[in-house]
Amino acid sequence: MDAETISIGTELTQGLTIDTNTAWLSSRLAEVGVTVRRHVTVPDRRSAIRDAVREACTAQVVLISGGLGPTADDVTRESLADAVGRPLVLDADALAQIRAFFDKLGKPMTEGNEKQALIPAGGVALANTCGTAPGIRVEHGNAVIYAVPGVPRELMVMYEQSIEPELIARSAGRVLVRRSVNCIGASEAVVGSQIEDLMTPDRDPVVGITVCEGIMKIWITATGANTSTARSAADADVLLIRERLGKLVFGEDDQTLPEAVGALLVEHRATLATAESCTGGLLAARITEAPGSSRYFLQGVVTYANEAKTDRLGVQKALIEAHGAVSEEVAAAMAKGARAGADADYALSVTGVAGPEGGSPTKPVGLVFIGLADRRECSVRRCMFGDHVDRTSIRERSCNVAMDLLRCQVMDL
Amino acid sequence: MDAETISIGTELTQGLTIDTNTAWLSSRLAEVGVTVRRHVTVPDRRSAIRDAVREACTAQVVLISGGLGPTADDVTRESLADAVGRPLVLDADALAQIRAFFDKLGKPMTEGNEKQALIPAGGVALANTCGTAPGIRVEHGNAVIYAVPGVPRELMVMYEQSIEPELIARSAGRVLVRRSVNCIGASEAVVGSQIEDLMTPDRDPVVGITVCEGIMKIWITATGANTSTARSAADADVLLIRERLGKLVFGEDDQTLPEAVGALLVEHRATLATAESCTGGLLAARITEAPGSSRYFLQGVVTYANEAKTDRLGVQKALIEAHGAVSEEVAAAMAKGARAGADADYALSVTGVAGPEGGSPTKPVGLVFIGLADRRECSVRRCMFGDHVDRTSIRERSCNVAMDLLRCQVMDL
Repeated sequence: MDAETISIGTELTQGLTIDTNTAWLSSRLAEVGVTVRRHVTVPDRRSAIRDAVREACTAQVVLISGGLGPTADDVTRESLADAVGRPLVLDADALAQIRAFFDKLGKPMTEGNEKQALIPAGGVALANTCGTAPGIRVEHGNAVIYAVPGVPRELMVMYEQSIEPELIARSAGRVLVRRSVNCIGASEAVVGSQIEDLMTPDRDPVVGITVCEGIMKIWITATGANTSTARSAADADVLLIRERLGKLVFGEDDQTLPEAVGALLVEHRATLATAESCTGGLLAARITEAPGSSRYFLQGVVTYANEAKTDRLGVQKALIEAHGAVSEEVAAAMAKGARAGADADYALSVTGVAGPEGGSPTKPVGLVFIGLADRRECSVRRCMFGDHVDRTSIRERSCNVAMDLLRCQVMDL
Repeated sequence: MDAETISIGTELTQGLTIDTNTAWLSSRLAEVGVTVRRHVTVPDRRSAIRDAVREACTAQVVLISGGLGPTADDVTRESLADAVGRPLVLDADALAQIRAFFDKLGKPMTEGNEKQALIPAGGVALANTCGTAPGIRVEHGNAVIYAVPGVPRELMVMYEQSIEPELIARSAGRVLVRRSVNCIGASEAVVGSQIEDLMTPDRDPVVGITVCEGIMKIWITATGANTSTARSAADADVLLIRERLGKLVFGEDDQTLPEAVGALLVEHRATLATAESCTGGLLAARITEAPGSSRYFLQGVVTYANEAKTDRLGVQKALIEAHGAVSEEVAAAMAKGARAGADADYALSVTGVAGPEGGSPTKPVGLVFIGLADRRECSVRRCMFGDHVDRTSIRERSCNVAMDLLRCQVMDL
């Protein structure tokens, strides 16, 4: 089965927004054996949308996203009606759903929201459990057209609830299973060299690497006549890659580093506290991203001012004066102070120069000290992120290194 | 002048890679007055690429990215030759450049790299100063076609060095200026209804809205014979929209909410502390995203455990027992404790149920209390994010509401 996808939005053709929906949809379509043969992006203009929909209808499935909002610049429903040559009619169920949505929020519904209940005659409204705009399903020629909102979460939920099950039922051919092995602690080149033989282009499963702020995902994409064949092939590669990369591997598939670290802490019944300077709370925020983190995360302090380091963590003023706030000594004192203050099993600390200002020849932007204290001892890792790494990345990478330090310590690697 | 862009790569149509090049290119094209009327993505297949190029040639400019690499799956140059109906010929200068690139790296050149010096007869090779693949410029009918590598850095440098100057020279005048008015504190429908008359599709400047976690950007895109005419038209709309939306507006253009709040605190020489439960440090992390935030942000505490609320913020144990950690009373006590503990002018507190677990009938997932204390008093805002909002969004939106509360208080709105 083949598909064409259409993204609608002037913010896309003007380059104001990066289209992340299309990659997500394409990947999900591939999983159920639907090949995206072409993707088109057009602005919020009726003629452009109408033409794009008509051309796309040579495919068996057309997936349109965006332009279903309540405001005047959203014209996807009108354009879709133009393309299939049918009038828009008010869908009573859809209207009732929109009303219910606003009632629940205790907010008034506007006239623009009423417009969202219009769908082309003969079509079906797709329920939206996360927002106001219902989706639309309508057939035209040999194609089934689905239109969904451009808000990523609404699009994802609607695809999973209303579209994917139908596609699976219709799809007859080869299916795809994608897995990943997630690692940290080495460069992409080092990781790549250890699995180079698996990364040849014509191999099935296909193996590739993506990198983000020090975290590498090794993707394994296997195809097969059915899910179980494809899954076996992918699983075999996961095992092989885990074996080769050893302690660099922290998780698989959707498991994030905060989740992996959290699972280890739960397993060891251990608790954690944090003390942050340059990451400004981001380390605690990353750790508490994981649902259920209250089982191990006790508290964190963000000691941006030097007085706070002294008041909140008991870091001696003289120590800061002697070595500076960005130093191995202060990182150690912060970690020890945070651990003792929270009576936690572990504490992580971060102090560094995230820039763009505040750097000096001896302590340049990108210099970060990460402390880890447990009930017995304390160690400090010195990181120097290159000068091509910006404030946001320095903060993100520092958090990832800190979580990885803790992971290795808890696992006694 | 109008353009169509084409992204080439099976990794794109399979959804393994998010296409960030297209947004970047579209935005840069808009700046020099070139309107992208359509974007297409096709896999690495000759017929698909050929057809896409032919169709795109009704535009004056066609910008192709990707598929110029040295390996067998890169077929953009062959497909481009098919589309314009001309043979590929070896470009001696391009070959010399590729050779020089490898000599510099001290690595041997492969046969695949030699292929990269082929361009359609009558075309011109575009120098690549960051990689091996030269770009291609070739005319066809009324269109000028540019093909550049898909590696973002190579694409960017080649666009800036070889393509943009030519487009500026050709662009018979009309340039584009884009501005935005950034707001928070109402729904998209409410904001939309107040500027509906500006959002009609054929108006110039074009006005549109994008929304992310409660923050709305109203985009104003004006065209004109020169930058100053376009800028005047855009500026007039910015004023008009600011007037209509009043206190909902927190900034313009690239200014983020943390930056806007930070600028206000600096202006009022005021300092800030935070106390967080469900946001787990994210509020402090957002506030310290802004470079220079050490001028006003003193400290933050993440009191995930109830003991931490008592130890770190002096929230009485009895108060937590009587009302629960997620309550107006505890939010107020957290804010007061954080302010006093840091001797700050203001303190923000957040306590709520971010989910997915931990909800109850009286305190469901999505219930968040946000406290704001100053040196005189303390107020608490109760937020109920709908059950369609997930953990990540509840945390993000809570931070945005908190920063907005502070903004309104500091401005005395």
